Amino acid sequence: MGGYTGKVLRINLTEGKISTEPLNKELAKNYISGRGLAGKMFADEVPADVDALSPENKLFIASGALTGTNAPTSGRYMVVTKSPLNGVIASSNSGGQWGAHLKFAGYDMVILEGKAARPVYISISDDSVEIKDAAHVWGKDVYATTDILKQEFGDDKVKVLSIGPAGEKLSLISAVMNDLYRAAGRSGVGAVMGSKNVKAVLVRGTGKVENANADEMKNVLSATMAKLKENGVTGQGLPTYGTAVLVNIINESGIYPVNNFQESYDPDADLISGETMTANHLIKKDPCYRCPIACGRYSKWKGGEGAGPEYETVWVFGSNSGIHDFDAIHKANDLCNKYGLDTISVGATIAAGMELVQKGYIKQEELDGTPLEFGNADGMVEWVRKIAFAEGLGAKMALGSYRLAEIYGAPELSMSVKKLELPAYDPRGVQGQGLQFATSNRGGCHVRGYLISPEVIGMPEKLDRTVIEGKATWVKIFQDLTAVIDSLGLCLFSSFALGLSDYRALVNAVTGFNYTDEELLACGERIWNNERLHNLKVGYTAAEDTLPKRLLNDPIPEGPSKGQTIRLAELLPQYYIERGWSATGVPTPERLSSLGM
Amino acid sequence: MGGYTGKVLRINLTEGKISTEPLNKELAKNYISGRGLAGKMFADEVPADVDALSPENKLFIASGALTGTNAPTSGRYMVVTKSPLNGVIASSNSGGQWGAHLKFAGYDMVILEGKAARPVYISISDDSVEIKDAAHVWGKDVYATTDILKQEFGDDKVKVLSIGPAGEKLSLISAVMNDLYRAAGRSGVGAVMGSKNVKAVLVRGTGKVENANADEMKNVLSATMAKLKENGVTGQGLPTYGTAVLVNIINESGIYPVNNFQESYDPDADLISGETMTANHLIKKDPCYRCPIACGRYSKWKGGEGAGPEYETVWVFGSNSGIHDFDAIHKANDLCNKYGLDTISVGATIAAGMELVQKGYIKQEELDGTPLEFGNADGMVEWVRKIAFAEGLGAKMALGSYRLAEIYGAPELSMSVKKLELPAYDPRGVQGQGLQFATSNRGGCHVRGYLISPEVIGMPEKLDRTVIEGKATWVKIFQDLTAVIDSLGLCLFSSFALGLSDYRALVNAVTGFNYTDEELLACGERIWNNERLHNLKVGYTAAEDTLPKRLLNDPIPEGPSKGQTIRLAELLPQYYIERGWSATGVPTPERLSSLGM
Repeated sequence: MGGYTGKVLRINLTEGKISTEPLNKELAKNYISGRGLAGKMFADEVPADVDALSPENKLFIASGALTGTNAPTSGRYMVVTKSPLNGVIASSNSGGQWGAHLKFAGYDMVILEGKAARPVYISISDDSVEIKDAAHVWGKDVYATTDILKQEFGDDKVKVLSIGPAGEKLSLISAVMNDLYRAAGRSGVGAVMGSKNVKAVLVRGTGKVENANADEMKNVLSATMAKLKENGVTGQGLPTYGTAVLVNIINESGIYPVNNFQESYDPDADLISGETMTANHLIKKDPCYRCPIACGRYSKWKGGEGAGPEYETVWVFGSNSGIHDFDAIHKANDLCNKYGLDTISVGATIAAGMELVQKGYIKQEELDGTPLEFGNADGMVEWVRKIAFAEGLGAKMALGSYRLAEIYGAPELSMSVKKLELPAYDPRGVQGQGLQFATSNRGGCHVRGYLISPEVIGMPEKLDRTVIEGKATWVKIFQDLTAVIDSLGLCLFSSFALGLSDYRALVNAVTGFNYTDEELLACGERIWNNERLHNLKVGYTAAEDTLPKRLLNDPIPEGPSKGQTIRLAELLPQYYIERGWSATGVPTPERLSSLGM
Repeated sequence: MGGYTGKVLRINLTEGKISTEPLNKELAKNYISGRGLAGKMFADEVPADVDALSPENKLFIASGALTGTNAPTSGRYMVVTKSPLNGVIASSNSGGQWGAHLKFAGYDMVILEGKAARPVYISISDDSVEIKDAAHVWGKDVYATTDILKQEFGDDKVKVLSIGPAGEKLSLISAVMNDLYRAAGRSGVGAVMGSKNVKAVLVRGTGKVENANADEMKNVLSATMAKLKENGVTGQGLPTYGTAVLVNIINESGIYPVNNFQESYDPDADLISGETMTANHLIKKDPCYRCPIACGRYSKWKGGEGAGPEYETVWVFGSNSGIHDFDAIHKANDLCNKYGLDTISVGATIAAGMELVQKGYIKQEELDGTPLEFGNADGMVEWVRKIAFAEGLGAKMALGSYRLAEIYGAPELSMSVKKLELPAYDPRGVQGQGLQFATSNRGGCHVRGYLISPEVIGMPEKLDRTVIEGKATWVKIFQDLTAVIDSLGLCLFSSFALGLSDYRALVNAVTGFNYTDEELLACGERIWNNERLHNLKVGYTAAEDTLPKRLLNDPIPEGPSKGQTIRLAELLPQYYIERGWSATGVPTPERLSSLGM
């Protein structure tokens, strides 16, 4: 069985006990690895009703089945745990180098259980694993922590994963960071690590991940690499302009949210587009492990340099906050990386705060003199800092937009689904993506099924974004396929160029599992249903498969998509049928049994 | 005048004096910057007969006119000085990030004069420049030096250029390294820095390089970026496989030297091809400043990870030494970076040593037990180390292949031109490239005119590599255009996709100089003639515009190009005519005057 190391590292922090155990291969065949397998193990091991920030929660840091192999874009790992933001199975996915090195060190995943008595970090050097005191880095930001622990480790090839002050302070929108600038961003996973008193996990691996069938892999590799090169998005748009290449594309479609989704078109969007970033800020590309796309940016801005912001980040600190100061956007992005925060949720919470001020819910005297208003870039940057350190109103904002808006009696101003802040696409103008937002198991999220690809970009084929016919089918397939891609440890962006058969060819060459296309996609469906069952246990019902009121009730007010609305009431029943679920969104025993669940 | 900072930093090491002076703009208009301008200033300031390793020699570390701008591939700088290997104007060119940051700090070039009384390093932080004690890093390798000085500087954004032990020990094949893995490799420039007791130059710049015409630049940028993306080499071959994509291409043409040029085809070359490196060693791409191509590799190998070897390096430690152990090739490459050595000259000197042993010139007892024979990978790696530290026979090898072979009475076994080791193309099978090797002002070098592009790859158009008609014209144009590209601070690889008019558009948008195509190319010709005049003053004559005897006298023995010979005797006179030089290769007063020289 290639690809897998076959070994799981389990660390009980309460007892200070380190152990390894063999990977369950039967389960791996059915749930692949990463998001799928760790999600299944999580559901089996952790009762659904535990408090996410209690020692009873567990944190799985899991590679994918192809992570660390020679497959293209195979650098990803996932943080799987109960989300403190909304109680679902979080599975926050990150790139960079750390994930591959976990495999090189000989582990498919690390499970952190219990809670350390005081701040610690985990040091993994191949077979040698230690729990070490972290008092000297507790309170330090991600950059300083990385620096200090690297030196302490004494080998600059070591890869560092850590939380920042935000995770320590249990912010519900805090991230787990790795390789300085890469984030397992969403669902507040940083706080779970913080709640366990774990500051960082260092990994240095000198081994290699084998392929079951090296000859076959050579052919599959060359075929998939060629597809990635020839595709317009993975071979041209993303490499040249980074993910922010989307700013102009999405804005011109009139589905680019402005001022906390009060509008959906920004006439000044090009001021903060990928093209402008490339012209004025880009220093170099900063690619993940074995990525031929290399969308990562390393930028400079007034007063600093570091990671360049992604599309979502540009949008959320830009147009969605009424801001067109690209230096300020870079700065806000840098602070999120430095303090360990999810850029989407932080920016969306600030934008919600701006609307709460605009509408009079939050009074000026609560702001301690820091402006919180659409268009105020300096204020926005300062609020990022205040959220990280939970200062003043920042302490409430550190709980995310939903709790913030709820505190002020206006939960409808949180542009979120299941308390997770929505990303940069107005669902009213993209029916399939709207359905996906409403049904995504982890809440308002575009990377559980990126329907923008067919509905706006036209890959693998161009769909009419305004119609609902056939969209439920597309959403189900995209959700299941995405679960597969995540669990393989590949980057979702590869799917602009690759399809199910390509992933099947890759996973078979690596693991020797010999899946058919149908069997592989069934793994995705199994993963999706496992997550859904957990959601139901936590108490979510079909009523939460919805969208913020504004998007549900009002048409798009202006711009190229003016007048469009989301037809969720018609889409949802079709989706439940497609999934083989009851009319109330509960997986039927028949469907579960057909999946062997 | 955009692009330029207009400021030159001059450091007299003997007196410890630091000063700045304005850039000579008239000279810049005629010689651009970098290789051209620094070469002209060098020729004006330094008598041709100084000893390269004496305090009277000067070391110019010069950016190009476009270095640090937003032009694609604009990360390069050049080390211009009198070469201790062969006395010519060395102009060793390197990528990475250092060059751009010199511009950000506000300097077009740094001139090091005289000699420090004891080891020092230069620390540049925008306007603040210091000469600091380097006793604690003298003797240390490049990686350790980078690490220690970065910490000392206290800002990890600082960029480090340094020499390794090889430069300190005045090896004539030592390099100046920057950003850990980037080398101003050829002509022994590391020894000049070592002779001045300068270990490193640190630079931290927070400024920005302006474009004279930002609007025009936007258009030029998008046009040139599109060409780079669409071109098969810069958009596909180099990004996917790195420069080692050439291994199979050049080998299949039968012009891939094996065992110190004793053969020209390697049936096992694919074992060490770019395709194989990508499949088995690649971790990620490691791009230079603003490079959309990103051919740089970050690899892992048995026992280590770091920069992956370039095509030339793969060849010289591989087929040219009879070796197909890719781990060993990676290791040898890593040692060269670590100790600050030129991979081509080191590998070629080892291969020459192998043939000297094979033919009985070097006796076994001189080897101190370390095998020096074709195919012995462990021995090869150990000889790299011995060269770096000048141990045993390594001390002789540290002088380069020409002096090594000469010491043993067999200078014809050095595969070099003007004492500089030839790169990985057998000139007998490529007439234009052969003429270029023979006439290159710095000796056996492919990056003073890369005729492989039209003659083998077919860009900008496909030429028959076996004919000589028209080649003199091509060589002159390529040499002059390359001098322009170097002086702009752009990567030569950009020229697979871009032509003279593209460079003219870029330089005009940046500087506002408003060159015509003819004027810009004339700058290249001026630069070439300046270098030629220096060569003549040093004592080189037309007799040295030649090739190693073996290549001149014997046809290619086997493989796809079997029987081919280089027709240099016919090519040279055509070339001199093309250049407007006398029949003995001396620039005529008429031609010089037409160039305003």
